[in-house]
Amino acid sequence: MNTFGHLFRITTWGESHGGAVGVVVDGCPPQIDLDISAIQFELDRRKPGQSHLTTPRQEGDAVEILSGLFEGKTLGTPISMLVWNKDARPAAYNHLKDLYRPSHADYTYQQKYGIRNWQGGGRASARETIGRVAAGAIAKQILCERSGTEVLAYVKQIHTLTADVDTDTVTLDAIEASPVRCPDPIVSPKMAERIDQARRDQDSLGGVIASVTRNVPVGLGEPVFDKLKADLAKAMMSLPATLGFQIGSGFEGTAMTGSEHNDAFYIEKEGEAGRVRTRTNNSGGTQGGISNGENIVFQVAFKPTATIGKPQQTVDVDGNEVTLEASGRHDPCVLVRAPAIVEAMAALVLTDHLLRQQAKS
Amino acid sequence: MNTFGHLFRITTWGESHGGAVGVVVDGCPPQIDLDISAIQFELDRRKPGQSHLTTPRQEGDAVEILSGLFEGKTLGTPISMLVWNKDARPAAYNHLKDLYRPSHADYTYQQKYGIRNWQGGGRASARETIGRVAAGAIAKQILCERSGTEVLAYVKQIHTLTADVDTDTVTLDAIEASPVRCPDPIVSPKMAERIDQARRDQDSLGGVIASVTRNVPVGLGEPVFDKLKADLAKAMMSLPATLGFQIGSGFEGTAMTGSEHNDAFYIEKEGEAGRVRTRTNNSGGTQGGISNGENIVFQVAFKPTATIGKPQQTVDVDGNEVTLEASGRHDPCVLVRAPAIVEAMAALVLTDHLLRQQAKS
Amino acid sequence: MNTFGHLFRITTWGESHGGAVGVVVDGCPPQIDLDISAIQFELDRRKPGQSHLTTPRQEGDAVEILSGLFEGKTLGTPISMLVWNKDARPAAYNHLKDLYRPSHADYTYQQKYGIRNWQGGGRASARETIGRVAAGAIAKQILCERSGTEVLAYVKQIHTLTADVDTDTVTLDAIEASPVRCPDPIVSPKMAERIDQARRDQDSLGGVIASVTRNVPVGLGEPVFDKLKADLAKAMMSLPATLGFQIGSGFEGTAMTGSEHNDAFYIEKEGEAGRVRTRTNNSGGTQGGISNGENIVFQVAFKPTATIGKPQQTVDVDGNEVTLEASGRHDPCVLVRAPAIVEAMAALVLTDHLLRQQAKS
Amino acid sequence: MNTFGHLFRITTWGESHGGAVGVVVDGCPPQIDLDISAIQFELDRRKPGQSHLTTPRQEGDAVEILSGLFEGKTLGTPISMLVWNKDARPAAYNHLKDLYRPSHADYTYQQKYGIRNWQGGGRASARETIGRVAAGAIAKQILCERSGTEVLAYVKQIHTLTADVDTDTVTLDAIEASPVRCPDPIVSPKMAERIDQARRDQDSLGGVIASVTRNVPVGLGEPVFDKLKADLAKAMMSLPATLGFQIGSGFEGTAMTGSEHNDAFYIEKEGEAGRVRTRTNNSGGTQGGISNGENIVFQVAFKPTATIGKPQQTVDVDGNEVTLEASGRHDPCVLVRAPAIVEAMAALVLTDHLLRQQAKS
Repeated sequence: MNTFGHLFRITTWGESHGGAVGVVVDGCPPQIDLDISAIQFELDRRKPGQSHLTTPRQEGDAVEILSGLFEGKTLGTPISMLVWNKDARPAAYNHLKDLYRPSHADYTYQQKYGIRNWQGGGRASARETIGRVAAGAIAKQILCERSGTEVLAYVKQIHTLTADVDTDTVTLDAIEASPVRCPDPIVSPKMAERIDQARRDQDSLGGVIASVTRNVPVGLGEPVFDKLKADLAKAMMSLPATLGFQIGSGFEGTAMTGSEHNDAFYIEKEGEAGRVRTRTNNSGGTQGGISNGENIVFQVAFKPTATIGKPQQTVDVDGNEVTLEASGRHDPCVLVRAPAIVEAMAALVLTDHLLRQQAKS
Repeated sequence: MNTFGHLFRITTWGESHGGAVGVVVDGCPPQIDLDISAIQFELDRRKPGQSHLTTPRQEGDAVEILSGLFEGKTLGTPISMLVWNKDARPAAYNHLKDLYRPSHADYTYQQKYGIRNWQGGGRASARETIGRVAAGAIAKQILCERSGTEVLAYVKQIHTLTADVDTDTVTLDAIEASPVRCPDPIVSPKMAERIDQARRDQDSLGGVIASVTRNVPVGLGEPVFDKLKADLAKAMMSLPATLGFQIGSGFEGTAMTGSEHNDAFYIEKEGEAGRVRTRTNNSGGTQGGISNGENIVFQVAFKPTATIGKPQQTVDVDGNEVTLEASGRHDPCVLVRAPAIVEAMAALVLTDHLLRQQAKS
Repeated sequence: MNTFGHLFRITTWGESHGGAVGVVVDGCPPQIDLDISAIQFELDRRKPGQSHLTTPRQEGDAVEILSGLFEGKTLGTPISMLVWNKDARPAAYNHLKDLYRPSHADYTYQQKYGIRNWQGGGRASARETIGRVAAGAIAKQILCERSGTEVLAYVKQIHTLTADVDTDTVTLDAIEASPVRCPDPIVSPKMAERIDQARRDQDSLGGVIASVTRNVPVGLGEPVFDKLKADLAKAMMSLPATLGFQIGSGFEGTAMTGSEHNDAFYIEKEGEAGRVRTRTNNSGGTQGGISNGENIVFQVAFKPTATIGKPQQTVDVDGNEVTLEASGRHDPCVLVRAPAIVEAMAALVLTDHLLRQQAKS
Repeated sequence: MNTFGHLFRITTWGESHGGAVGVVVDGCPPQIDLDISAIQFELDRRKPGQSHLTTPRQEGDAVEILSGLFEGKTLGTPISMLVWNKDARPAAYNHLKDLYRPSHADYTYQQKYGIRNWQGGGRASARETIGRVAAGAIAKQILCERSGTEVLAYVKQIHTLTADVDTDTVTLDAIEASPVRCPDPIVSPKMAERIDQARRDQDSLGGVIASVTRNVPVGLGEPVFDKLKADLAKAMMSLPATLGFQIGSGFEGTAMTGSEHNDAFYIEKEGEAGRVRTRTNNSGGTQGGISNGENIVFQVAFKPTATIGKPQQTVDVDGNEVTLEASGRHDPCVLVRAPAIVEAMAALVLTDHLLRQQAKS
């Protein structure tokens, strides 16, 4: 369904063209001084048109909060937020009414429901993530307030270009300083150039987002099906355009032996003296599905955007093979906007498990 | 919690040492002639001790069905299944009572619950997957009966050895013919050798399981959070020892351009003439989170088994740094037993979505 | 949480004073021609100020639909609906800021959350039922379209006045023709008089709503926890001011013997010849928790409205005993507006089980 | 489905004839010293054959715990419990194979599933409540340990005989001292006599169970759909043979005015001085769906048992009208065994909400 989470639970709604898109956040603890500008900040990080590198569509994406707050504080009741759709130009999509765009959701929606909103992506549009990002911004505030937990994500790879970033020390400022949100000052301009080239080629690029969460309380995650890594994987793979998820050493770790891969425990002598730590973090911050207090590190693979300018072979709703001509504009690399979304989903998962863990105390 | 699925729902229970492990399957359609031998067949594929390549522990793992059947047919009521624990030698684990094994769940369980069953893995033991495999065997029968859908999984990679397998044509027989469940006749014996070497080295190996599902009805999967790829990712990442999940082109696909990666649609001229097909399957069988009728192909990364024979540095429950000596026996590569588990989880996800789709009709 | 239903699922949000109240309907089947005026009709039946018998507060309560529709048809995606709050006069509630109104939710909310919106009922306001009624109006359309199922409710009792109504033949027109929604032409005017007297007395009245559902498919309801009668009971007892629920013969039936109470089966000879029927309907339309095709008949007890004009003894937030003076206006009997709400909840439960039953086919 | 509860969650399974009946309890907090004899005590209160007043069937009903415990303490993992079926005499039910017993679930199960276990009640048998009672016994221990909360239930009415009991002071000992579990020493023997007469008449009796819960923490219950009264109503109406639920003043309260019915607040001067109390308890311990610290008092209506000795008119599976002859033995009044079941369900609801409330802290 359109609901995610167990105790901290969001329900998103809305098509890309139509009245609005929004989210209901249920289970938010009461008495939190909600920083609404922090919600808008995240929406601005997510929105298209931030620079020439992203889509030229100008969306205001100003959030309205309709419930759940009283004198600036959360009531513990559902927080309803929405963003109005402003860029509705249905005519721009008329040529899509009768055909299925390759690697889009047009065909599967039509088969599943027997109907689809063919004006833009409809429910499958990336605009649906607005609700996730707004809700995630609330989750971030809870995490920060409760345990100083900070979630970050950045562009690790675009096309064949891979950044060299120290995950343990990367900062939000460093990420935001890069127009492609890649905090590697050498690779970042090359990525920008590659994206520009893709636009000129009427083509698109994919890549990898890396994420790190610091100051994670020990004990989050349920041991069997709702392992922290399982819920993170579901969260990320529920995003449009994702192809893969890996935690800790990931696919590369499969080529190591156990004696190389195991994370040896030791007792911290300085700082938080006496705390149990691991010398390596191949586990990526969880063991047995439960956080062990090390940084949670994972990566998400995004396919190259399905919308491109080049002509493509496809079929129409009547079963004819046809050519889809260029639509005139496209966003050659959505990864630049993805860090805010990945952070939001990670924050939602962690907040949910934080509340679940409280129930066990 | 310990429940997975929405309409076809399983609840597993049990520790590795204690009375039994089991599962309750809820939502199974009525009037299915249940083939109990097919359930036992899958449990036998999963169990340790099948050959010298797997753990020497002999588990009978004979399934008992306690409810939900009447004269051989399902009633539509919960099917309760259990397997008794027979190999309980608590003394064998006494040395583990007071320390945390590296990359195991000992430390995180202790922190989360303040208590743990230190005799074997307790709830974190791979024995928990018995319930999943038994339930998955029922799901497979439903899939086969309803839509001829077949789920397969095999060993794609062990350590640095990667098999060359045609996913579209691989068969269960070919998989089972290999002692390591790798249907590449050239690589399979090398893998067996590599595992033997790892045992001699008191070490362990990881690898990758590949899975293919054929004859998938179009339209399975919910478009936003419960995308088919998201539920598959959660299912796989809820398994012990998993590090990553990728579908279709996966992480490799991130280095392609959109024009290379998009799956062009065409109309099938032969066989099921008129059916909408894609020329490539970089999407791995789903678009917009919904099955498109192509084969569902994904891969799962497993870390090298955490239990090894070599001594390791760790800490005890009192905060001392100690050495964990070899425990005397270990299973150097659990991947050999993993195909049955991966297939079971995929079958559970697909059956759940099959029933969900029926509710929409 | 703020979500109700399993496959046909609603999430309501909003406080009585603040931006708006609304609902997200998830799981609505696609391709339904949605009659929006029918939604507004139900909201109008629910709203205060319909006659001098109800509260003088004038609420427009015009519904806005923000998603889930395309060219008048449902998309199968979430339907988001809202009604803006217009009657916000916070100053009118200033005297309630620091005290707890007897038999209201002020005290328990404050204890549970440590905060409350004291401007009106906040989340505990009957305004929350707007979302339920709007969603229920959609459910009614589905029930009507799928199985000709019709849900009705009417005022059976107010204070000590009890109506004589043939539940099997009562019509919506007869109900709506009465200003108190009691389709007994003799008792209806007496009830209106009794309500007027209560207003003059600065007091309030309770009563009983009766409901009947006709043309119910056989087989709805899950046999154990999600029995139809259990879900109906939960639905009704989740409404503000309810004190009890009874189905079929109800509390009176407890004084019968089994031989008197059992509903003898027979075979219908006329009409739907061959259909299995029962001669009596003490079971109220369900057996073993599952609908048997007879009319579903139940009753709901509502307490006298907690808001009255008379002075009352209470306490303030600082622990002082104080007198709550009359607030100047009140609705002496909410039952007049309750039929729309009871019908909505019953329709939601039945639609959910209709979809669940489809999943089993 | 067959699962009840959100954070403290039970899944029951099993038919009356077949291997066993059981329950999986998920979400039980760790480190609780589980008193297994207390579980067996509750099962013994529930079981038939306790005296000549109940069914003569002798069931041992000895509970086996298969998981979730380690050295006598709960692990926080699922607790699997089962009771083997011993009284399987399938032949005794042969005459029921082809007909539908009036006011039983035979017909609706057959219609819903197209199959049923006709040996006894199958899944609809009251034997299903064994799992509920065993799980409820664990919930009672948690409630007692966490907040000194005590749940009691007793027979308030059988047929036309109503007991006079002070709900606030009634004790378990007083209840158990009565062979019909009615703690009114004058009415109790009359009830026993009435039951004996019903047995001689080959007939059956219904009645009312009353329940009180004391020492309830303030703040349990979710304000909208998961109100405490709503979840209690669902819990009770999910029991076989229930016809109604009422809390506080219930249906009688509908004839009061608001000024009579409202529960005036005051400040307790003695005992827990300073605590906010209400002078009356017409609300039955909850306001706005949330516990207010007063006793939770409710009543449940049970129909006369459907199984009687007298011949009855019914139909068979082929659509013929037939006579169901006496089956030779029956339990004329299940109410005597119902208090343990009602207490169990109330304890499950309260424990679930206790854990949910912890998550909010």
